[in-house]
Amino acid sequence: MKITILTLFPKMFTGFLETSVIKRALALELVKIDIVDIRDYATNKFRHVDDTPYGGGAGMLLQIEPIDRALLANRSKDSYVLLTSPKAKPYDQAKARELAKKDDIVIICGHYEGIDARVEHLVDEKISIGDYVLTGGELASMVIADSVIRLKNEVINPDSLAFESYDDDLLEYPQYTKPYDYKGFKVPDILLSGDHKKIEHYRKKMSLLDTLRFRPDLIKRHRFTREQKELLLEILDDLKSGNIKVD
Amino acid sequence: MKITILTLFPKMFTGFLETSVIKRALALELVKIDIVDIRDYATNKFRHVDDTPYGGGAGMLLQIEPIDRALLANRSKDSYVLLTSPKAKPYDQAKARELAKKDDIVIICGHYEGIDARVEHLVDEKISIGDYVLTGGELASMVIADSVIRLKNEVINPDSLAFESYDDDLLEYPQYTKPYDYKGFKVPDILLSGDHKKIEHYRKKMSLLDTLRFRPDLIKRHRFTREQKELLLEILDDLKSGNIKVD
Repeated sequence: MKITILTLFPKMFTGFLETSVIKRALALELVKIDIVDIRDYATNKFRHVDDTPYGGGAGMLLQIEPIDRALLANRSKDSYVLLTSPKAKPYDQAKARELAKKDDIVIICGHYEGIDARVEHLVDEKISIGDYVLTGGELASMVIADSVIRLKNEVINPDSLAFESYDDDLLEYPQYTKPYDYKGFKVPDILLSGDHKKIEHYRKKMSLLDTLRFRPDLIKRHRFTREQKELLLEILDDLKSGNIKVD
Repeated sequence: MKITILTLFPKMFTGFLETSVIKRALALELVKIDIVDIRDYATNKFRHVDDTPYGGGAGMLLQIEPIDRALLANRSKDSYVLLTSPKAKPYDQAKARELAKKDDIVIICGHYEGIDARVEHLVDEKISIGDYVLTGGELASMVIADSVIRLKNEVINPDSLAFESYDDDLLEYPQYTKPYDYKGFKVPDILLSGDHKKIEHYRKKMSLLDTLRFRPDLIKRHRFTREQKELLLEILDDLKSGNIKVD
């Protein structure tokens, strides 16, 4: 897989490319990442790539021409071209899985003061990583690349992804490691019991409970299995009897 | 304002701290950013900060003790402590505005293989930047810092934020800059008319239309003004008559 990122701030990606998971994926040649400086495709010797908005208003807009030139020089006919933009359905894990199946992705980073609206015609899809305003599309493009590359890594290291947040519409169960007692906060004793069947039951139940507590919206779109319905009734009993206390 | 980020990958932040908007905010002393390496607070000479999960399972979990030690050494009594985690309500612009009012924020970066669930007791709030799985909380903490620092910058440079995505529940209107005609894609003529009243009307209408097209979910929670209701009726007429065409 190849990911090409078109940006005004190529230096911003240095640290990202050197983090462990990404570095490993690059070393294993699971993915190739190209960072392209849009300014290299400016049509003037001053390397300017922005101009004032038609119709007036504050700020400078990134122009379509240098973006199109950068795109034409760095895409193939099979490239799937994305633009980071607030004008899109929010990114989610299902979209990450979809993108992970592609061989060649190009991401154009939006610009904090705005971008010529016609760039929309050059891309296959716009992606927003969430309902907040960022100074540019660079972090958004790293988020997309990171989530996709992580899924490519799964092929090599499937175990650690067996239970994952969102993969089953539910949050992951809470996990604990040493020490057993930290300033009075103890690990639930059942996890020390060595009874794998009970531990599995407990974890499935806690996964449901955490989802109910922190992301009731995910529950709404979840289709419950028979086992999960029984676990929900258990949770209800536990809450009534005080066996489980939540904030 | 001070933002302290506790992470296992301090080098990942280098590029982020050097991007224009952040660099400017640092130079103007609008914000001070401290990147703290959690490993510096390991309790063993190997600088290990993770261990296996109680109850079995794949992966290594980040331990509570080095995080707590790093937190105690770097927080003040007024610090507002965040943990990046999928177990939280998704981050949005309203939350960014809330955080921008705080003087001292600490962000603990979650870990891709998991983190001891008891860390929850050390923080004021958990934040998820979206429904996708990342290899770590570093990008999430940059997204939070970026969106908050951008709002602090607003104080100095209010003009460029006058019309902004999400600030009014609606998406920004489309913007255009030179050239007028790019490979047949033209700037809407009204923007060249010089008639500011008409341009404003057009922009308000396009802001509504783009929101309807790309984020109908935002419309659902929006309270319409009388002017906006009239614009919606106009849009409906335009669509019927073919004055506006959408994909």
